[in-house]
Amino acid sequence: MAKRIITVSRQFGSGGRSIAKLAAQNLGYTYYDKELIKRVAEETHFDPDYIEENGEYAPGRTAFSFSPVFSGSAHYMGGMSAYDFLWVVQRNVILELADKEPCVIVGRCADFILRDRDDVLNAFIYAPMDFRADRIVRLYGESDKKPEERLKNKDSRRAVNYKHFTGREWGVCSNYDIALNSASIGVEECADIIVRLARGE
Amino acid sequence: MAKRIITVSRQFGSGGRSIAKLAAQNLGYTYYDKELIKRVAEETHFDPDYIEENGEYAPGRTAFSFSPVFSGSAHYMGGMSAYDFLWVVQRNVILELADKEPCVIVGRCADFILRDRDDVLNAFIYAPMDFRADRIVRLYGESDKKPEERLKNKDSRRAVNYKHFTGREWGVCSNYDIALNSASIGVEECADIIVRLARGE
Repeated sequence: MAKRIITVSRQFGSGGRSIAKLAAQNLGYTYYDKELIKRVAEETHFDPDYIEENGEYAPGRTAFSFSPVFSGSAHYMGGMSAYDFLWVVQRNVILELADKEPCVIVGRCADFILRDRDDVLNAFIYAPMDFRADRIVRLYGESDKKPEERLKNKDSRRAVNYKHFTGREWGVCSNYDIALNSASIGVEECADIIVRLARGE
Repeated sequence: MAKRIITVSRQFGSGGRSIAKLAAQNLGYTYYDKELIKRVAEETHFDPDYIEENGEYAPGRTAFSFSPVFSGSAHYMGGMSAYDFLWVVQRNVILELADKEPCVIVGRCADFILRDRDDVLNAFIYAPMDFRADRIVRLYGESDKKPEERLKNKDSRRAVNYKHFTGREWGVCSNYDIALNSASIGVEECADIIVRLARGE
């Protein structure tokens, strides 16, 4: 059966975004990544940088220590923390987009949020640490000082965020229809496999 | 790059064996499952049923309680337990088969044993519990009394065996090049994806 919606969850630096974009182009589906953040920004009035960082990652140690949201001293948005408020709005935007048109959605627990639909293909993209470290230094212009530490921090914060809102372990096969190692399979071949599955070929 | 060896690890009842067999047929590769057990039986003089059960599963509670091998009271095979001796022979047979000819090997930690080769594609096949429970009752003629318990027991003993000999967690994406949910993707499509990847298409 053809799939109308593709969710792409990915380890940081695995090339998951490139794979998602390529699959969307080849399928003629709308690609939601920055555009999703823009929509959430319109609804929440949060800064897009805040959404980009907190819509998918648990707050870092600094944010936990100093933000009034996480120190327990502040209540706003009707008693909801900014972090939880962002989740609610982001979830609603994802549900609306999935209703609206065939699309590819990157990250943001979309696999969990859309779990009750039967026209969704959930993909997970991962790669070994050395492949990802090389990639973030070379392509994203990240500092080449300890890229492995940055990757571990990103993975861990993504896992905490996913667990917090879904109750599931992030990156465990059983959450997905397919999981692909982009280092051994290659970015273009990963996109091709997703496209064929989405088309029901 | 084309892959000469395919390893297929699988959750019990997921259809991994059918997928491996189909992929081997389509690729023209030798399929090693029962034949592997036969070879190991020739080398070890163990009963094939013992190999089938203990070459991939940690011993069940009964075996731990009553077998002299696990009670610590017996030393044989040069101080090696039967369980460890089976591992050593099984490992050597897998290394020899991989050297000999293009093949598909089901289970038995072959992904780990062949990790130093660069012509191997490692696939993991999984499926939700209800799909597997229905499958083992319908196709394998298993009792329909508590099939979920039997599946959990099998999964857990496979994970313990894998951890014991490889130090890795069984079924975690990062051990494999590709992980496929056979319930949502379908047995034939899973085999097709593996065939295309093996051919480097």
